[in-house]
Amino acid sequence: MKLIPVILCGGSGSRLWPVSRELHPKPFIRLADGQSLVQKAFLRGARLAGVTEILTVTNRELFFKTKDDYREVNQAGIGTSFILEPFARNTAPAIAAAALEAARLHGEDALLLVLPADHLIADEAAFAEAVSKAARMAAEGRVVTFGIQPDTPETGYGYIEADGAQVVRFIEKPTLDKAQAYLDSGNFLWNSGMFCFSAGTMLAEMERHCPDLLAAAKSCYEQSRFAAGEGFTEVELHAKSFGQVPDISIDYAVMEKSGSMAVVPCTIGWNDIGSWSALGDLVAPDASGNRVEGQALLHDVSNCYIRGGDRVIAAAGLDNLLIIDTPDALLVVDRARAQDVKHIYNRLKQDGNETYKLHRTVHRPWGTYTVLGEGSQFKIKRIEVKPGASLSLQMHHHRSEHWIVVSGMARVVNGDNELFVRTNESTYIPAGHRHRLENPGVLNLVMIEVQSGEYLGEDDIVRFQDIYGRS
Amino acid sequence: MKLIPVILCGGSGSRLWPVSRELHPKPFIRLADGQSLVQKAFLRGARLAGVTEILTVTNRELFFKTKDDYREVNQAGIGTSFILEPFARNTAPAIAAAALEAARLHGEDALLLVLPADHLIADEAAFAEAVSKAARMAAEGRVVTFGIQPDTPETGYGYIEADGAQVVRFIEKPTLDKAQAYLDSGNFLWNSGMFCFSAGTMLAEMERHCPDLLAAAKSCYEQSRFAAGEGFTEVELHAKSFGQVPDISIDYAVMEKSGSMAVVPCTIGWNDIGSWSALGDLVAPDASGNRVEGQALLHDVSNCYIRGGDRVIAAAGLDNLLIIDTPDALLVVDRARAQDVKHIYNRLKQDGNETYKLHRTVHRPWGTYTVLGEGSQFKIKRIEVKPGASLSLQMHHHRSEHWIVVSGMARVVNGDNELFVRTNESTYIPAGHRHRLENPGVLNLVMIEVQSGEYLGEDDIVRFQDIYGRS
Repeated sequence: MKLIPVILCGGSGSRLWPVSRELHPKPFIRLADGQSLVQKAFLRGARLAGVTEILTVTNRELFFKTKDDYREVNQAGIGTSFILEPFARNTAPAIAAAALEAARLHGEDALLLVLPADHLIADEAAFAEAVSKAARMAAEGRVVTFGIQPDTPETGYGYIEADGAQVVRFIEKPTLDKAQAYLDSGNFLWNSGMFCFSAGTMLAEMERHCPDLLAAAKSCYEQSRFAAGEGFTEVELHAKSFGQVPDISIDYAVMEKSGSMAVVPCTIGWNDIGSWSALGDLVAPDASGNRVEGQALLHDVSNCYIRGGDRVIAAAGLDNLLIIDTPDALLVVDRARAQDVKHIYNRLKQDGNETYKLHRTVHRPWGTYTVLGEGSQFKIKRIEVKPGASLSLQMHHHRSEHWIVVSGMARVVNGDNELFVRTNESTYIPAGHRHRLENPGVLNLVMIEVQSGEYLGEDDIVRFQDIYGRS
Repeated sequence: MKLIPVILCGGSGSRLWPVSRELHPKPFIRLADGQSLVQKAFLRGARLAGVTEILTVTNRELFFKTKDDYREVNQAGIGTSFILEPFARNTAPAIAAAALEAARLHGEDALLLVLPADHLIADEAAFAEAVSKAARMAAEGRVVTFGIQPDTPETGYGYIEADGAQVVRFIEKPTLDKAQAYLDSGNFLWNSGMFCFSAGTMLAEMERHCPDLLAAAKSCYEQSRFAAGEGFTEVELHAKSFGQVPDISIDYAVMEKSGSMAVVPCTIGWNDIGSWSALGDLVAPDASGNRVEGQALLHDVSNCYIRGGDRVIAAAGLDNLLIIDTPDALLVVDRARAQDVKHIYNRLKQDGNETYKLHRTVHRPWGTYTVLGEGSQFKIKRIEVKPGASLSLQMHHHRSEHWIVVSGMARVVNGDNELFVRTNESTYIPAGHRHRLENPGVLNLVMIEVQSGEYLGEDDIVRFQDIYGRS
């Protein structure tokens, strides 16, 4: 029986801001070992017996970033297929699209294992055993959830009341009293958001419990753009009709209504990392209970989590705080109030403060750029282009650009000329000149760009040709 | 009678780190009104009746920066003379040099008013009145201190026990019990570090109480380099013999030993801004008691002082903290522990962390530079050159430089060529080429420099000519 992990890679950046942002959400946060959460999800799926392909449902804005993250860890050459959403939507539309795609490619018997991209699972052997149980039940036509054995009266999760492998009911996030009663009873499990089912079973359940959603999802899927190649398929969902698919969760659309739900109770070291406090707990503490990533100088500080980068962080006389530092935004919050970070994020978004959305380093299909400084009539960027990658053939009306290669080698189209610019060489692109930057080498190309002009907005760009379909 | 304010501009950056640094100490901190403390001291002296000249004793590393700060506020055209110390030393050597210089230029009757560069005085009318009283006593041959009427049992200051205008004794920083007793008694005043005396009186008192110090100071003064021009004099103290002058305070060398000390008790809104807590108190609080400079987003935060710059600072669930943010270093400290910042500073200095010494923006005689980014084999600087200023004629062995003018105009010597580089033009300086950068215009010149090479240390520089005497 074919088992296809389906990674749901999305979510907002709200609770782990300022490291997560709208266009750099939680799955892309790197842990102390250097791996991102989505890389860990990918490897978790890839290591399961018999898996040869992973299907990822993500926002099309996150497509290249996700592929880049996979490329770093996909030594086994697992096939990577994608369903690209035009905008963020809840889990039911994503799972409907995944079921339709799996049924088309592999038939209705194909088993899907839905994995959120932003959870951690410490015990992979126990996880693999739970998946194997779930897959057997899914093959018999059940929709199977994974229920985590609780060890604290957590109020931040939904619960599943179970009778052996049978789901009695799903329960919303409880009060502390109720959570304690659930913990004491032993029949209640945390709803992990992981599921296993065959494509055909899910489509039949949707036909029964949310036929309108399934019809809208089918209509969208049928109008979508399909691509395929060696070891991958891509579906770019049709934007307008995707907006017609109800924005609801799979729990609400199917799981809570279905009478044939099964659950695999498991103890697998599951952690959904729902806050900075939870993320901090993954870092080993020092003798004073401080958990530090980056450079910190602490004087009488205890039980703090400090996550920085290049800057020195000095602290004195603190207890139980979270200090999260990034190049353009700083967060200081009482550890007990870690959940309030989402209010801060929402306020920033309302205020139109760019830090809710983008980091100073912005990912593009061809690499990254970082704004190093700007002033009246100039802006300085560090541009890094991946080997073999190419920016679009483009032109700016209002700005000219000085390019200085500081590492690697560039092939440049500048007006009617084509030239190579080597390390420590420069070139000048006057306003109105068509130009293209390409990295023909095998090492990353690093370039400093100094823009000069009366208007320097990112929207002053005319794209003539773009290998990433953006012209 | 001629009255010459003597501004002592020095001190370490320890208690107000990370805004103050060894080469950007407390006098250069800017308050919310945009003025630095040394500018405020300058104006305080300049506004006194009859003042036509201010003498400043400072480290020669701080000379140009101090002059720049004065230039911004010296609309009245007060004469600005300097005594430049080769390295930091206590107050007695500085005051000895000031007395010698004043006696030489204006005779032994000239009155000196010693003002630390890093204090605040809110009530300038009361200050002027106190100075006028002090000057009358100084003219009669007294050494006069200014004693601040205490309003709290402060343990961070020295005290003066007074009997009318007569000093009974000087007292070191007391315990809280003693400070309370001093406050209750009404006969004790805070030692403000401001003094008034004639040059001749001070030299005579030194001859009596610290003849060795005076002899060493004279020997140093006589070997020093003197310069003078329209409205200024400059003494660059002889480095080797300056090291022979005992490193002690004027209080210890003279004041505590002299029987003829007088005191002017005063209430002038004096504040020595001894910590971040004191500096924060100068900013108006919001309804929750928060004092904010820069961009901050606060969620259930009270009684905090937050000082930032361009970055967003977000905080939740905090009370009574100080958050001080700079481009390369961040400080978070409990308000009650503001004095502990000096321990942090000392640790950074021991560890050789550059942030104890320099900001990312470094002041030079000709302007400033800011490191925007660096990597393997490249470094990017923003260089700002003042109108009419010129860098030295120089050469680097190991690095080449790309210069792009983004604002203003540059005159450049590049090997055997001399050229003008205008806004949005660039030039390239190969390693081994002699070069010079100059701003011939009347606006600031802003330039981006991209350095490229195997070694990029500031010490790879050969200076052929330098208008600031650094070759």
